[in-house]
Amino acid sequence: MTKNNPGRFFEDYSVGQTIRHAVPRTVAEGERALYHALYPARHALYSSDEFAIACGLDGSPMDDLLAFHTVFGKTVPDISLNAIANLGYAEGRWHRPVWPGDTLRSESTVIGVKENSNGQSGVVWVRTRGINQVGDVVLDYVRWVMVRKRDPGAPAPEPVVPDLAIAVDPADLVLPEDLSFRDYDYDLAGEPHRWGNYEIGEKIDHVDGITIEEAEHMLATRLWQNTAKVHFDATQRPDGRRLIYGGHVISLARSLSFNGLANAQMIVALNAGAHANPCFAGDTVRAWSEVLDKAPTLAPGVGAIRLRLVATKGDSGVFALRGDDGKYLPEVLLDLDFWALMPV
Amino acid sequence: MTKNNPGRFFEDYSVGQTIRHAVPRTVAEGERALYHALYPARHALYSSDEFAIACGLDGSPMDDLLAFHTVFGKTVPDISLNAIANLGYAEGRWHRPVWPGDTLRSESTVIGVKENSNGQSGVVWVRTRGINQVGDVVLDYVRWVMVRKRDPGAPAPEPVVPDLAIAVDPADLVLPEDLSFRDYDYDLAGEPHRWGNYEIGEKIDHVDGITIEEAEHMLATRLWQNTAKVHFDATQRPDGRRLIYGGHVISLARSLSFNGLANAQMIVALNAGAHANPCFAGDTVRAWSEVLDKAPTLAPGVGAIRLRLVATKGDSGVFALRGDDGKYLPEVLLDLDFWALMPV
Amino acid sequence: MTKNNPGRFFEDYSVGQTIRHAVPRTVAEGERALYHALYPARHALYSSDEFAIACGLDGSPMDDLLAFHTVFGKTVPDISLNAIANLGYAEGRWHRPVWPGDTLRSESTVIGVKENSNGQSGVVWVRTRGINQVGDVVLDYVRWVMVRKRDPGAPAPEPVVPDLAIAVDPADLVLPEDLSFRDYDYDLAGEPHRWGNYEIGEKIDHVDGITIEEAEHMLATRLWQNTAKVHFDATQRPDGRRLIYGGHVISLARSLSFNGLANAQMIVALNAGAHANPCFAGDTVRAWSEVLDKAPTLAPGVGAIRLRLVATKGDSGVFALRGDDGKYLPEVLLDLDFWALMPV
Repeated sequence: MTKNNPGRFFEDYSVGQTIRHAVPRTVAEGERALYHALYPARHALYSSDEFAIACGLDGSPMDDLLAFHTVFGKTVPDISLNAIANLGYAEGRWHRPVWPGDTLRSESTVIGVKENSNGQSGVVWVRTRGINQVGDVVLDYVRWVMVRKRDPGAPAPEPVVPDLAIAVDPADLVLPEDLSFRDYDYDLAGEPHRWGNYEIGEKIDHVDGITIEEAEHMLATRLWQNTAKVHFDATQRPDGRRLIYGGHVISLARSLSFNGLANAQMIVALNAGAHANPCFAGDTVRAWSEVLDKAPTLAPGVGAIRLRLVATKGDSGVFALRGDDGKYLPEVLLDLDFWALMPV
Repeated sequence: MTKNNPGRFFEDYSVGQTIRHAVPRTVAEGERALYHALYPARHALYSSDEFAIACGLDGSPMDDLLAFHTVFGKTVPDISLNAIANLGYAEGRWHRPVWPGDTLRSESTVIGVKENSNGQSGVVWVRTRGINQVGDVVLDYVRWVMVRKRDPGAPAPEPVVPDLAIAVDPADLVLPEDLSFRDYDYDLAGEPHRWGNYEIGEKIDHVDGITIEEAEHMLATRLWQNTAKVHFDATQRPDGRRLIYGGHVISLARSLSFNGLANAQMIVALNAGAHANPCFAGDTVRAWSEVLDKAPTLAPGVGAIRLRLVATKGDSGVFALRGDDGKYLPEVLLDLDFWALMPV
Repeated sequence: MTKNNPGRFFEDYSVGQTIRHAVPRTVAEGERALYHALYPARHALYSSDEFAIACGLDGSPMDDLLAFHTVFGKTVPDISLNAIANLGYAEGRWHRPVWPGDTLRSESTVIGVKENSNGQSGVVWVRTRGINQVGDVVLDYVRWVMVRKRDPGAPAPEPVVPDLAIAVDPADLVLPEDLSFRDYDYDLAGEPHRWGNYEIGEKIDHVDGITIEEAEHMLATRLWQNTAKVHFDATQRPDGRRLIYGGHVISLARSLSFNGLANAQMIVALNAGAHANPCFAGDTVRAWSEVLDKAPTLAPGVGAIRLRLVATKGDSGVFALRGDDGKYLPEVLLDLDFWALMPV
């Protein structure tokens, strides 16, 4: 019997099934420092204990996307080892901060399956939960992937396509307990622009660019214990290139967005996301944002802002996204839709 | 008087001599996180405090090989700065876990010397001990290297060749106090295969590959404070390549072996090891294992498994090792023999 | 209104003005470990809690240059985003150690401005202070940069050129409270050479070299939250190269200087510094030092040594510095002048 993990195929998923993913992981100051070395992360709430304490927290939590990558990475051996494509995200919410010393594990429940008409593959929808050492959910999100069938002759399951929200309702956003931006220090945060200064439809060019190296995306992707071969093994593709983990591009773009959105401190919901085109070492990644929506919150001085964050290997100042055919332009790497919290 | 360190030559070693190596080092959460960024390390006991606590420990210790590299690195300026070849390891044992916050230093005692017949160099055997801040030995092993003579005309010492065990006797393995795999969680560990499922002689292809970058092996080798010039300085070799620290290949191979040996949680003894061929940036490293032996232990639910771990830059599925001439095949990078602990 | 940060231009600075820089940063074990992975840092006081405790401290502080880079990085968006050249440093002093868990922020006061005769740019002098979470200054230094004017037609300000000391007076050095080298362990520190063994005028070749990779200097520069585009974005220069942050070269050279100056444990003052030539990935950096001065201190067993530290991409053994024209030779990367503390 072969002992290495062949991954799951389309036939191995059924609606209602729950998968407990390996390997739990304790995250602490080391992961925090690496996050800041790998990405130009500067949002003050995740950089300074003192700043976070002034915002009502007990200290600086682990970066919101660090929590996401840690939870996501665990799902790869069970969900996407044989995936052909990572199709989308929906209904993602951060339920509570992850603190240094917390141990995270992940569980996924299959909520949809639909075989493709070619009979070679199918789409699987899962709801994944990140769970800390006391059993609290820190994060959950829906993700769907296209997965190969092991046996093309296997019968197609009854199709189940979940009904997913276009965006998380602002009333459903979960804010960290005691969060307050009433005594917010704009000097230390880096920019004077508050929630009230952003208008729906406004676009922001984040200006800066980062040229990616192979070593960097591999360090990151290993840190999240993501085992997908294409990120590490240059012999996996005929062109000898390693495909960069889409989450690496998310974190790059989010960090670059500091320049113009320094006060969009915390991501609290992931509405949608598309990895529009593959990213490779040598690409220079830039980012731009569009304000999609705004909503008040019950926390003192805190507003929610819904943002489209676009990563591009082209000029971020032209705000390019889709061509006349409605398809993503070739230079667009990422189209992410999320809710963040800002001082009002 | 020149103040920089010229290293020791063959004449500088004599049997019985003990060398206290510089520089002591405190290791903590930062080193742990870097270990996980540098290697695809996923063994649950070294990833999760909760998992380790469920196995009877106080928390997740520092990775066994991280301890090894830290202890080994300190010996380089005194033992191998002028070494021509790193010839072997024997009788290595881990005596107790290294915890975050521990400070390690190293000492080596010369246990053998033998001049080569060419009169230009000789072999030196040392037993190295890694010692923590309270004076306990955490790790010891024998290593032998071929070292240049300063003066080819210097007289040859009386040859002393230590009598080394082929492998550590399982009765001599030291297990961490209170270790128990009675309540082992196979889901969280990542694989269902237990000690009883492995047969002596069985070979496991670990499937995955990692293409190495210069930045990665240098980050690792600096982290272990290993100062050998060939790892860092591209002008040291005529071909302009940097030789990768053999320990980097050990950690890569061990981490890759998760896929098929996820439950071989802790390395407790190093029986032998050969760096069969040099490794360079651009090589894609794969690994396979062979079960050499098995032994019960006194700890609840814990068995010992003796493994050969082979790193190769070729196909790991063909289990290649030596040619008809008995020599390592050119694609073989590492042949390591160790004892690990598994749930029975 | 554009929301991203255009940086400040020469007209935006006036003498007496104080700028509170974003973003505060908590530094801990993670940053320490990364510092040791990025640089071949081996000075025992910054490597081992036990060694530091034996020297009278509460534990091992964060590396002196890690503190400098962290403080410096915060100033970049306000001081040097539009800088044409980084002209010099003076009167830098470390006032107290930075401990794991400390949160640092930076403030700069403009102490000089002088428009260049071309009317296109000017020189700005600032005194920058690094401040910890209880409001204590941990570090201060003067730095001057050449900055573009936004509008070449804007009137020139009254020139103010600060009167800066050639070197910090040894009487003004601040030593960590309770520091003592009376029980100094030379074996563990790595070299036997004490303060009394160094002569003014003596030059030391540090021998070792490190070939730099793009990934490494970007990881470092991001870790210090330095946002200068030229370090990260390969499209910023016509030759497609990324300019390496000068501070990266400082830390490389200082770490390489262990080999010959292992006992120059702590930097306590920065007298002067010039980034003589730009450094790029692929360069192999070496270092040499010259003893410029020596002074006793009041701390038990502690002497101060004033060192010139030169980084070169040429042969460090020829001690090259300036040509017959008085200009730095093309292979010289850095000329740094500082005070360090040694056991007498």
